[in-house]
Amino acid sequence: MAIYLDNAATSFPKPDAVCEAVGWTLKNAGGNPGRGGHGFSLEAGRVLFEARETVARFFGVADSERIALLSSATEAINLALFGWLRPGDRVLTTRMEHNAVSRPLNALADRGVQVVRLPCDADGRLSLDALRREAGVGARLMVLCHCSNVTGTLQPLEEIVDICNRYRIPVLVDAAQSAGHFPLDIGRLGVDMLAAPGHKGLLGPAGTGFLYLRPGIELQPLIYGGTGINSTAKQMPEQMPERFEAGTRNVPGLAGLAAGIRYLETAGPQLVEARLSALTGQLLEGLAGIGGVKVFGPGPEEKRGSVVSFVVEGRDPAEFAFRLDREFAICCRAGLHCAPDAHRTIGSYPEGTVRLSPGPLTTQDEIGQALEAVRALARIR
Amino acid sequence: MAIYLDNAATSFPKPDAVCEAVGWTLKNAGGNPGRGGHGFSLEAGRVLFEARETVARFFGVADSERIALLSSATEAINLALFGWLRPGDRVLTTRMEHNAVSRPLNALADRGVQVVRLPCDADGRLSLDALRREAGVGARLMVLCHCSNVTGTLQPLEEIVDICNRYRIPVLVDAAQSAGHFPLDIGRLGVDMLAAPGHKGLLGPAGTGFLYLRPGIELQPLIYGGTGINSTAKQMPEQMPERFEAGTRNVPGLAGLAAGIRYLETAGPQLVEARLSALTGQLLEGLAGIGGVKVFGPGPEEKRGSVVSFVVEGRDPAEFAFRLDREFAICCRAGLHCAPDAHRTIGSYPEGTVRLSPGPLTTQDEIGQALEAVRALARIR
Repeated sequence: MAIYLDNAATSFPKPDAVCEAVGWTLKNAGGNPGRGGHGFSLEAGRVLFEARETVARFFGVADSERIALLSSATEAINLALFGWLRPGDRVLTTRMEHNAVSRPLNALADRGVQVVRLPCDADGRLSLDALRREAGVGARLMVLCHCSNVTGTLQPLEEIVDICNRYRIPVLVDAAQSAGHFPLDIGRLGVDMLAAPGHKGLLGPAGTGFLYLRPGIELQPLIYGGTGINSTAKQMPEQMPERFEAGTRNVPGLAGLAAGIRYLETAGPQLVEARLSALTGQLLEGLAGIGGVKVFGPGPEEKRGSVVSFVVEGRDPAEFAFRLDREFAICCRAGLHCAPDAHRTIGSYPEGTVRLSPGPLTTQDEIGQALEAVRALARIR
Repeated sequence: MAIYLDNAATSFPKPDAVCEAVGWTLKNAGGNPGRGGHGFSLEAGRVLFEARETVARFFGVADSERIALLSSATEAINLALFGWLRPGDRVLTTRMEHNAVSRPLNALADRGVQVVRLPCDADGRLSLDALRREAGVGARLMVLCHCSNVTGTLQPLEEIVDICNRYRIPVLVDAAQSAGHFPLDIGRLGVDMLAAPGHKGLLGPAGTGFLYLRPGIELQPLIYGGTGINSTAKQMPEQMPERFEAGTRNVPGLAGLAAGIRYLETAGPQLVEARLSALTGQLLEGLAGIGGVKVFGPGPEEKRGSVVSFVVEGRDPAEFAFRLDREFAICCRAGLHCAPDAHRTIGSYPEGTVRLSPGPLTTQDEIGQALEAVRALARIR
């Protein structure tokens, strides 16, 4: 039986309730929400409403209309960046970003946006001194990955928001690796925008994600089209969430996302965090005891995400990961993880690392078996 | 038992095989395609490959890499329009478009694109004379809805492509209401771009769609991010389909789309067309026999789509549709159907129409019951 330790790419398996919610919706709520007054359309509308309310409740958002339900975190980040930044703007970011942030920023740089990449230490921690310095110069936005998908490094959101607030710089958080794994109270954190995928820590299906926008943040849409309301207007409606939801939503997928979040609520977000922390600690301590293994990112004594990157001296990460899968049935991911800047920062560019990422459904026994496999494979050549 | 006649909004019910493919994929192909070398990731990659091949085969596209798998037809149209048109360009379109075309064009008009809306007759047929005249002036693109979502009017694609070819104007087709209902051979038609949703005539789940691009058509991406390949490049990859597929695809949804298309292949696309034509003919003839009913769009003697709009003299379409649903369990959609321009063209603006749209799973008996309901409701007040 394969051991799945690639939850940073997508969580697997999904809770049974997620699969059931998708199946139920396909069979029973098959109308187009907001596009008809009949029962199947209303039922689909209820599914969407419930998904939006569930996301809002889980993230401490008082008004669920501030949540745009989208197809991926990548779409959410693109909407935020292209919808907010204009030629001549200055945007701050970090040297630990995923391509979902770096590539839209590179495209915006081609259109005259000035992108300032703040340095991070070899464990991926953002330099708050650099942030203070550059924030003082002024910027239209600070965008950052909350938890690195390479090293699990968690950036100190409270302090970052505090610094940015001082200079009235809105903060956009890419919560791809933290949403679901850490209790995130958007209201309390005071971030201005937050993007997350549905299919990672929130345990929903692929094809889902969302963008939270603080009241007062106004964006240009990324996608224009029918919204089921204000059909006669030439432009997209002003109000959220319709302004950012042109076209038919992924209703069955979003039903699954709501079910994934309810699973986390029932399990208890604090308990999920503690469980992931324990599994990650077990993994980090185990790897530290294997000769020739170098682990990247913060140690287990620091609060960190459940993403662990390592290399084995003299061994190619891609080949090592391939053999972990083929010879020991350990599912992991090698290479640059769509985050070349992060690998440059931690010193693992261009060959990358082997990445192991437990999820809420991973067991201690599975971590034990994965460590055995790494130990055995590190010995043989 | 409710009778679902809102297939123009989304097809329902889905074939069992569609629900099964989604469920199977969620449980067995749960990795992230292109983001790992392990079995679950490879299996998800196979699902995506199979979906792409299935779309390509069904639409007569020789190279499946010319198909970008997206979250909706609306996303596909936005990608095509924003990726192709530049300030100063002139674009031709029709007065029968859905907001999925009209609204991005309005946004582009604000950025200096000149939008020329070609007239259509009261049944929604494009004036080919107007097209010839305006094409002669020159344009960077002709974009049109193949089959109206209000009247079922089918535009003559072959002649339109022929005229546009003469002036080297690429053609973008919105096939939202024709894909799956009519055999569409893209290779034979010679269109340059074609956008379609997965959840209407193709019988897949919501949250799916695609854009076909002829070799040689090069677009700017709409969404930038990780692609699982060329991670080190600062920009999006040049090659299709990855260039337009940033972020994790809706793998379970696309598995469902492939299953929906296979269902149509097994049923036989010509037989599906004939069946829909018969149901639409039954509906049109039945409605014509009900006193006070005015039907819009072409009659049954013309090749047309399975979308039928009507009003009843002296009756509000919204209230009529509401009562059809509540008192007779006929699921339909009233109003402007996100296509105010089309209603202006046919003379039903601003109150709109009542729309009935059968699908491949609709039965003659259901059409009969719907006609009975309209007849009864038209009599009582």
